[in-house]
Amino acid sequence: MGLTFDQFLEQEKQQLDSLLPTFIDHIGEDAPNVLRESMVYSLNAGGKRVRPILLLATLYGYGKPLTIGYEAACAIEMIHTYSLIHDDLPAMDDDDLRRGKPTNHKVFGDAMAILAGDGLLTYSFQLLTSLKISSEIKVKLIERITQAAGPAGMVGGQVADMQGEGRELNADQLQEIHRRKTGELLAVSVEAGAIIAEVSEDEREALRNFALHLGLAFQIKDDILDVEGDESVIGKPVGSDVGNDKNTYPKLLGIEGAKEKLSFHLREAKKYLYKTSMDHTLLVEITDYIGNRSK
Amino acid sequence: MGLTFDQFLEQEKQQLDSLLPTFIDHIGEDAPNVLRESMVYSLNAGGKRVRPILLLATLYGYGKPLTIGYEAACAIEMIHTYSLIHDDLPAMDDDDLRRGKPTNHKVFGDAMAILAGDGLLTYSFQLLTSLKISSEIKVKLIERITQAAGPAGMVGGQVADMQGEGRELNADQLQEIHRRKTGELLAVSVEAGAIIAEVSEDEREALRNFALHLGLAFQIKDDILDVEGDESVIGKPVGSDVGNDKNTYPKLLGIEGAKEKLSFHLREAKKYLYKTSMDHTLLVEITDYIGNRSK
Repeated sequence: MGLTFDQFLEQEKQQLDSLLPTFIDHIGEDAPNVLRESMVYSLNAGGKRVRPILLLATLYGYGKPLTIGYEAACAIEMIHTYSLIHDDLPAMDDDDLRRGKPTNHKVFGDAMAILAGDGLLTYSFQLLTSLKISSEIKVKLIERITQAAGPAGMVGGQVADMQGEGRELNADQLQEIHRRKTGELLAVSVEAGAIIAEVSEDEREALRNFALHLGLAFQIKDDILDVEGDESVIGKPVGSDVGNDKNTYPKLLGIEGAKEKLSFHLREAKKYLYKTSMDHTLLVEITDYIGNRSK
Repeated sequence: MGLTFDQFLEQEKQQLDSLLPTFIDHIGEDAPNVLRESMVYSLNAGGKRVRPILLLATLYGYGKPLTIGYEAACAIEMIHTYSLIHDDLPAMDDDDLRRGKPTNHKVFGDAMAILAGDGLLTYSFQLLTSLKISSEIKVKLIERITQAAGPAGMVGGQVADMQGEGRELNADQLQEIHRRKTGELLAVSVEAGAIIAEVSEDEREALRNFALHLGLAFQIKDDILDVEGDESVIGKPVGSDVGNDKNTYPKLLGIEGAKEKLSFHLREAKKYLYKTSMDHTLLVEITDYIGNRSK
């Protein structure tokens, strides 16, 4: 092995940043230019690539070549990106900025933003069919990813989140919304690495639990940054969640309570990681990175 | 064999009408009730089920049991339905009625309509992973369906259609837009039947050409009905395409020219059908049905 976390992160983020638009280019002329531009615009909008990095770090931890995972890693990033484009629409959260840049519909208009999202979602599954792994594993992957991203996963979480706005939720209800809205897609990123690496069911289950705790930690950290973060660093107005009447952990538990909950989930995440047979160095460092990030 | 076309159509439409909401029910509690209601509302909104019927009629023509095709048939109907929900949104065509009923966003709001579409699209691929066929065939199916529905297919056609509005197009350009916007999904419905029946590449190619001509005929007939149809029968205002400044075949070729073009594509469609080894009785009758329908 031998790569440090920083080297791995830098190298793979660069690789993903260059692969993502390349995959869109490969769709070819039948996809109108402006559609491809709109899709690439949001893919290039400076994401942290957390989900594909988790997938690749899992492969790496099992000593597998990363080359067998790039299509799946990019497919999951496309699903994440489509969800952001649709979330930002005027009919949904009505956000003008995302990571400090104008949102997709601000640049391309609402109709194109809807279609760019639809295009990214559909194409992500096409990309999954092109992986250089057995058909059995591809089908398993697509099954798990659609469960995580679909009506019982991310899409359902988004609806539950909308329904929860303006209503008082308790911490368990909020956690259940976040599990579906963001947790399942993060979890399936790690699970996808494990599926491609063909590890045992037990290992996959431990990794799924690791990632669910990591996802909750990620969301709690987001909420804390919205209260305490530096606007020029996080790329959106600080306090915008509070103004939105959103349910957040700091509002529910206080800022100290939220920080305690963050620590708990980071600890639990690592506990599950230690149960696996993998070299978990990178995933432990990613966990710390997510807990300590300033944006 | 022995079923007449009318018997087949009635029996299978009933079967599809009852299966589609059942599949949505099976998603379970993690999908919020209102999301499932919104998905089912549009699935139940009185579609002709042309695409799943094409898939099932293809299977039937090769003497295969229809039971191996229902998940795929319903998945394609879900993709068709998601595309209608998104097309009807205020940001897109802004339609209040579809098949004589209020459109999804009129009943559930714009945000829910976007998410119901996203949910149907994602779930359709989950459904395809559950087919009782080999993994190789599932992957082949998902690959072709994503190509047909994605940025180089239906989504791309929708963008091209938007770009064409208010501009003068010639008949070739209009045809190329329709091939992507509606033709590819119709074609892949037939191809999906052929893929599940495991027929040769040559047969599949002939069936693809059959379905592309059928798709064009379908679109031309739609345009003609918009000029000549009975509003109470077609369920939307007659002449709405003209008012919309849409490019249509009657506008481009005159009503007689459009009818000639319709006959041409119906003839070509059948020509390709006769090249296959299947029992093509049902598909010939569907072709006539599409050419002669009054809504």
